[in-house]
Amino acid sequence: MDIVIYLYNGLTALDAIGPYEILSRLPNANVKFVGKEKSLIVSDTHFLKLFAEYDITEIDQADILLIPGSVVGFLRESKDPNLLAWINKIDKTTTWTTSVCSGSIILAAAGLLKDKKATSHWGVIHLLKNYGSIPLKERYIQEGKIITAQGVSAGIDMSLYLASKIVGEENAKAYQLFIEYDPKPPFHSGNIDEADPETIELAKKILRTEARKDLTIFDILKNAQALLKLERGK
Amino acid sequence: MDIVIYLYNGLTALDAIGPYEILSRLPNANVKFVGKEKSLIVSDTHFLKLFAEYDITEIDQADILLIPGSVVGFLRESKDPNLLAWINKIDKTTTWTTSVCSGSIILAAAGLLKDKKATSHWGVIHLLKNYGSIPLKERYIQEGKIITAQGVSAGIDMSLYLASKIVGEENAKAYQLFIEYDPKPPFHSGNIDEADPETIELAKKILRTEARKDLTIFDILKNAQALLKLERGK
Repeated sequence: MDIVIYLYNGLTALDAIGPYEILSRLPNANVKFVGKEKSLIVSDTHFLKLFAEYDITEIDQADILLIPGSVVGFLRESKDPNLLAWINKIDKTTTWTTSVCSGSIILAAAGLLKDKKATSHWGVIHLLKNYGSIPLKERYIQEGKIITAQGVSAGIDMSLYLASKIVGEENAKAYQLFIEYDPKPPFHSGNIDEADPETIELAKKILRTEARKDLTIFDILKNAQALLKLERGK
Repeated sequence: MDIVIYLYNGLTALDAIGPYEILSRLPNANVKFVGKEKSLIVSDTHFLKLFAEYDITEIDQADILLIPGSVVGFLRESKDPNLLAWINKIDKTTTWTTSVCSGSIILAAAGLLKDKKATSHWGVIHLLKNYGSIPLKERYIQEGKIITAQGVSAGIDMSLYLASKIVGEENAKAYQLFIEYDPKPPFHSGNIDEADPETIELAKKILRTEARKDLTIFDILKNAQALLKLERGK
């Protein structure tokens, strides 16, 4: 079972790694991290680098496709015709096409969410309308073979649901126990409709700060790759 | 604020990335992914490779130290005197020393949990006693400056708690909203004391399967690094 996770600079790491933690343990899972180039990929906060072991020209099918979100990187990705064509090509072969957070905006830009209900991070969910999609605030939404999830951490819930579709509820429950997913957030502030106004204002401030970080992302990546090359040469 | 996350082959990715997603956004956060060597590090299911940008000889202090867990890799790590000495050295400089999942066994092996309450993944929590630590089934436990968390996903809850200690509850709540951490697991099976016997049996079966994967982890990593080197040389 080929599980293709698309990596791009500026992605939010947990969007990809939450579902990975479940899906990579499915029987016969073969997870492929795919980038525009085989390269180190840097996350939105600049520190973590993940390895895209395949480039998109090497991948022409998937059983599951997962598009993670980002703070602002998704805007760049959703305007890249090569990427959108690749997503369309892969989607024609998938059993499941999925997204987490603002990854749904990329799916929408690829034309896959037209006239479909979908969800996304609270900060960008309104953008779905621009692509003829019907935004709904649900933790995750299945529309046929497409499942979109809310922001960042929602990918964990979504992937457990997806696992239950593939290997049945009993096995999915075992994966939940395996990752001891018995969430006990110390606060009750994860839902935009239930958070207090001060929390929302602070979260929007964080969003603006994080968005600015994207400006220098390529320089930071270049440095990391130069460092890696240096080490390899030893 | 230097946040040092130790990466090692066979780690469970979400153990590191859950807390990373919160901690890397703290004001003045400088997250350093540290390995025994500057190298790609492969996760327990073999597919994901993370870049350890620093080696342990380069790092001699941290404000926050985080030791992630693994399915079996922690056993190797907890017998490595160089690593344990490094952890002790760093711990002397930290404001917070933390672990997720079986990472607490490594902290215990380093002597840091003696006579202290601590927690871990349900599959390995009994090992804490071997090091004079007092195992307790709590989502996360603070003992002075040490915080240990339960399995895998518990690192998210722990890091929100830690964030509240550093930047206050109001800001921590905003980080929770930022990652839209409003968990809605499709099942109620994440707690070993509440899961049904079939789920527990299946989860133990997954654990055994995952443990076997560790046997070939180094070969897989070698292949990935050879591939990366090849690409760099183009």
